[in-house]
Amino acid sequence: MAQSNDFLVPGSNVQIDGTPGGPLSGLTFVAKDLFDIAGHPTGAGNHDWASAHPVPTENAWAVQTLLDAGASLAGKSITDEISLGILGENAFDGTPLNPKAPGRVPGGSSSGSVSAVAQGFCDLAIGTDTGGSIRVPASYCGVYGIRPTHGRVPLTGMLPQAPSSDTTGWFASDAATFARVSSVMLNEQVLADLPTRLVVATDAFGFADEHVAEALKPMVDELSAIIGKTCEDLLAPQGLSVWARAQRTLQPAEAWSTFKDWIERENPRLAFQVARNLAAAATISRVDRNWAGLMREEARARFKHLIPPGTILCLPTTPGPAPLKNRPMAELDIVRDRITCLAAHGGLTGHPQVNLPGSTVDGAPVGLSIVGARGHDMALVAVAKAMEK
Amino acid sequence: MAQSNDFLVPGSNVQIDGTPGGPLSGLTFVAKDLFDIAGHPTGAGNHDWASAHPVPTENAWAVQTLLDAGASLAGKSITDEISLGILGENAFDGTPLNPKAPGRVPGGSSSGSVSAVAQGFCDLAIGTDTGGSIRVPASYCGVYGIRPTHGRVPLTGMLPQAPSSDTTGWFASDAATFARVSSVMLNEQVLADLPTRLVVATDAFGFADEHVAEALKPMVDELSAIIGKTCEDLLAPQGLSVWARAQRTLQPAEAWSTFKDWIERENPRLAFQVARNLAAAATISRVDRNWAGLMREEARARFKHLIPPGTILCLPTTPGPAPLKNRPMAELDIVRDRITCLAAHGGLTGHPQVNLPGSTVDGAPVGLSIVGARGHDMALVAVAKAMEK
Repeated sequence: MAQSNDFLVPGSNVQIDGTPGGPLSGLTFVAKDLFDIAGHPTGAGNHDWASAHPVPTENAWAVQTLLDAGASLAGKSITDEISLGILGENAFDGTPLNPKAPGRVPGGSSSGSVSAVAQGFCDLAIGTDTGGSIRVPASYCGVYGIRPTHGRVPLTGMLPQAPSSDTTGWFASDAATFARVSSVMLNEQVLADLPTRLVVATDAFGFADEHVAEALKPMVDELSAIIGKTCEDLLAPQGLSVWARAQRTLQPAEAWSTFKDWIERENPRLAFQVARNLAAAATISRVDRNWAGLMREEARARFKHLIPPGTILCLPTTPGPAPLKNRPMAELDIVRDRITCLAAHGGLTGHPQVNLPGSTVDGAPVGLSIVGARGHDMALVAVAKAMEK
Repeated sequence: MAQSNDFLVPGSNVQIDGTPGGPLSGLTFVAKDLFDIAGHPTGAGNHDWASAHPVPTENAWAVQTLLDAGASLAGKSITDEISLGILGENAFDGTPLNPKAPGRVPGGSSSGSVSAVAQGFCDLAIGTDTGGSIRVPASYCGVYGIRPTHGRVPLTGMLPQAPSSDTTGWFASDAATFARVSSVMLNEQVLADLPTRLVVATDAFGFADEHVAEALKPMVDELSAIIGKTCEDLLAPQGLSVWARAQRTLQPAEAWSTFKDWIERENPRLAFQVARNLAAAATISRVDRNWAGLMREEARARFKHLIPPGTILCLPTTPGPAPLKNRPMAELDIVRDRITCLAAHGGLTGHPQVNLPGSTVDGAPVGLSIVGARGHDMALVAVAKAMEK
C-alpha cells in the first residue's frame, strides 16, 4: 500500500493528548481543518480564510468529545476549500493520497481525514458531510464512514456550509473501532438487535456503473443473509436526478449565504471551479429554492415511509470508484453530478447512512451504503459490526 | 513622496542591458509581467499560470525594440491577474504603491509599470491596454501614458486578452522621455505641426465626478489655447453606458475564448472577482455579442466622423481619482463600471489616446485624455510635449 504524510495541513503542527482512562484511550485521531482547535487557526483549505478569521479559543464539540473520551489528537487534516468539493483535489493544501488507489483522488471534502485513516496513520478521524463529504471518500478509500442523523451531533466549532444539511461524521478502518467511536459520539451503546428488514434500492443500483452493481452483489447477499426479510424498491420515485437537482439548489444557495460576507469583503483566492459554483449559487432564485424545498418535503415523506425503524435500505455509495487525479474540469463536473444522484438523499432527508467497505472495481474500492431511520444511527453501526464478523 | 519596491514581481530577478548607442541609451524600463523575456517565466500575475506554460525563448517585440534602441530592462512589473483588472489589487503578487496617493490603488492592470515610473525607479515602462489598463493607472498615478492605435504596435510575445481590443502601451513621467520612447515604439518622429481643432466631450465631462471636471478645467483651457479652434460635442451619442456595455460584452467574451482552455484544464486559483467575471463571460450569448458588434460599428463610425486627422478630442481619463485600497467588492464593481463608461471607446474604436497628468482631486491625481484619429498617435505625443512647456 502506498504511503505519504500529505493528508496533514501544511505548516500545521498540533497534537493533544486525550484524557486518560476514557473509552477511547489509546486511540489517535485527526480532525478535518474545519474543526476549531483552541490556539490554532482553522484553515478551511483556503489560504485567505484563516487571515480573515480569529484564531479559535475553544475546541470544537467533536474534538473535545473525543479528547474527553481518551483519544489523542494527532493532527489537522486537509479539506477541500471551505468544504466545497467532493473529490479531494485542493490546489492550496494539496491532494491527499488515496492509499488503496494511488492514481485516483481520495474523495472529499474530508480528504485528509479519510486518507489518514486509510493509511493507518491514526485509528479514527472526524470530518463533515453536507452533500456526501464523508460517504464519498469512505467509498473511494475503502473505510467505514458515517453521516449521522442530521441534528443529532452538535456542530459547535465546526465551520458550517449549508446548515440544513451539515453534519459531523467520522471514519475508521475496522468495524470495532468504528463502533467504539460511534458509541462515544452518539452517546449510545451498540444495539444487540439488528434491523429485521432490508430494502435494496433498485433505482440506485441501476444508476451506478454496471461493474459497481456486480462488485457489490456479494455484500448485498451477505447483508440479506444477516437481516433476513429483503425486498426491492425505489429510493427516489421522483427520480434520483430530480432529488439531486433539489439538493444542488438548496445546498449551494445556503452555502452562498454562509460565505457571502467573507467573499464580498475579502475577494479571496479560490480555485476557478469553486468560485464559479459560488457565483452561480449567488443567482439561484427564490422560486427555484421554493420548488426544491417542496421536493425535499417529498423526499422526507418518502424516506419516512420507506425506512421505518427496524428497516434499513442499501445502495451503492458512489456510482463508481474514485476518478483519476488531475482530470479536466468538464469531465469532473459530470462525475460530481453523478455522485450527487446517489448522495443527495442524505442532505435532503437527514437520515443516517454508513459506508461499508469491502468491494473493488478495477482494483479501486467501492462501498455499499446502508441507510436507517432518523435517530437509528446505532442500528447501522450494529450492522457494520455484524458484517465484519 | 512615498516609496517602495513593491512593483516588481516577487521572486523575479532580471536585468538586461540595452544596445549601446541607441536613441534610448541611458534610459531604464520595466516590463509588465505579460511580456515574454527569454529565459524567464511569464507570470501573468497568477501563481498557476507560469507552471502551465513554457518558459519563453524569445523576448517580446516591445521588450526587444526597447533593448535594441538602447534602453535597459530593470525588472518585471506586477500585473493584475491575467490582465483582468483595472484597479491594480492583486492577491498573488501584491498591490504596488500609488506614490502620489499612498492610501489609494495604483490602477491596473499595468499596476507595477505605472508605480515604477511614478516612483522614479525607471524612466519608462511598458504595459498593455485592452479596456483601460494603461489609461486608468496613468490617470491615477499622474504620469503620461499612451494606448496606441489598435493594430499599430506588434503584440508578438505579449500575453493576449481580447485581441480585437488589445494594445501595447507605455508610461513616462515627463513629456520629453514620453516623446523619445513613443518615437521608437511607433517608428515616427514627433510632429512639428499640432492638431488645429479640439473637441471637448461634454457627455464625458458631465459623467465624471463634479470635482474632476472642475479640476481639469485649467488643463482644458490650456489645451484650447494651444490648439485654437475649440468646440463641444458628444463622445457617444448612443450613451456612454451603452458603449460601455457593448465593450463589456465583447471584451469578456473574447477573454473567455483566450483563457478557456487553460482554465478548464488547470482549474487555476483566481481571486473570486476574477473567476466570477470569467464564469459570467462564459455565458455571454451569440445574440448579445452580435448586437454589441453592431454598436462597435456605430462607435467606429462616430469617431471617424468626430475625430478626423487634425482634430483631437479631450475627456477626463477616469470619472474620479483612484479609489481607496481594500474596499469591498460590491463597491469596486460600481467603480469599475463607471471607469468603463469613460474608457470603452478605446477598445471599441481602436483610436489612440494619451493621458496627460497635471490635476488633482483631494490631493490624488486625475488625468486629462486626448484622443486622435487612427494612426495619428504622434499628434497626441506632440500635444503632450506642447502642454508641458
